[in-house]
Amino acid sequence: MSIDDSILAEVFKDISFSSEETTLIESKFEKIELTKGIILLRADETVLNQYYVQKGCLRTYYIDSKGKEHTLQFAINDWWISDYTAYFSSTKAIMNIECIQDATLYKISKKNIDRLIQETPRLETFFRKKMEKAFASFQKRILASLSQSAKERYITFRSSYPNIDQSIKNYHVASYLGITTESLSRIRKELTHS
Amino acid sequence: MSIDDSILAEVFKDISFSSEETTLIESKFEKIELTKGIILLRADETVLNQYYVQKGCLRTYYIDSKGKEHTLQFAINDWWISDYTAYFSSTKAIMNIECIQDATLYKISKKNIDRLIQETPRLETFFRKKMEKAFASFQKRILASLSQSAKERYITFRSSYPNIDQSIKNYHVASYLGITTESLSRIRKELTHS
Repeated sequence: MSIDDSILAEVFKDISFSSEETTLIESKFEKIELTKGIILLRADETVLNQYYVQKGCLRTYYIDSKGKEHTLQFAINDWWISDYTAYFSSTKAIMNIECIQDATLYKISKKNIDRLIQETPRLETFFRKKMEKAFASFQKRILASLSQSAKERYITFRSSYPNIDQSIKNYHVASYLGITTESLSRIRKELTHS
Repeated sequence: MSIDDSILAEVFKDISFSSEETTLIESKFEKIELTKGIILLRADETVLNQYYVQKGCLRTYYIDSKGKEHTLQFAINDWWISDYTAYFSSTKAIMNIECIQDATLYKISKKNIDRLIQETPRLETFFRKKMEKAFASFQKRILASLSQSAKERYITFRSSYPNIDQSIKNYHVASYLGITTESLSRIRKELTHS
């Protein structure tokens, strides 16, 4: 199933397309429905696609040499997700992507994005600016990891991802913050009582 | 002083330009010489420019509410530097940028980059891909901060920034790794003796 017209406006916001462009763009996206627990990407797989999240929630995580999971990112409505390091260089994933709330995604391959950009240069501006925002959000995350306490990072997390805190597992949040689930419980209690 | 022809090839690598494009691009860059210790950007200043580092070394750092410095990034030959979050949104800097080794930079404003991209769409591809690389390097940094020990992060640092370790201050490296200078000394000793 390909992407439909109304979704196009959701993905590309205020860019307007001719009907030929619309047809072309629609033909390059594939709609995917995922149920909770499905692994969308596993480490060591070649990364050829990125995904626009229409609804639901996914997480990107890394498993270290001791088997411990580290959550790099959650993706909710209107986010894009992939193992971007691998995607950009067309190499194998080091990350895994798991669906943690039933989700509707739109998948597009790097090859097709390159084609769309060639046909519709306005899309290159869109993807450049999308990248800039993602880069800025990672800069904030690095700064937070260097300069904020776990409690402050948790507060930032809740404002970055409103409404997902209740519905995802404690160890996902803890592995995103780089703390234990015990520390997370303590922080939550402190915030409830303050 | 504007950028000269030979530098253009250094900045934009394998992109070839017509002589009109070359003249236009050259007119938008400004060459800057900085001596060690100069602050190129201070928190709270509006960020209008980004900088290509031809030689020397700079660091981007954040000063937290307790006055402690956290180094986000070092920039050496062939890196670009700015407070990108502020640059992209044309808002005020939260970071500072300091020259820590005498440097030659090429400065360009966001306005002029936008103009160049409009005139020479190939440059949009260049800046998109530059952004993708920067994003991937930040992803690696976040993963390292979540999953690696301080010693492992120091080893990664040395491979990311070859040759700068000896010539920059210990507290710069420590504030980049998120550790104390004492821990850095201990790690260095361990590595020397292993």
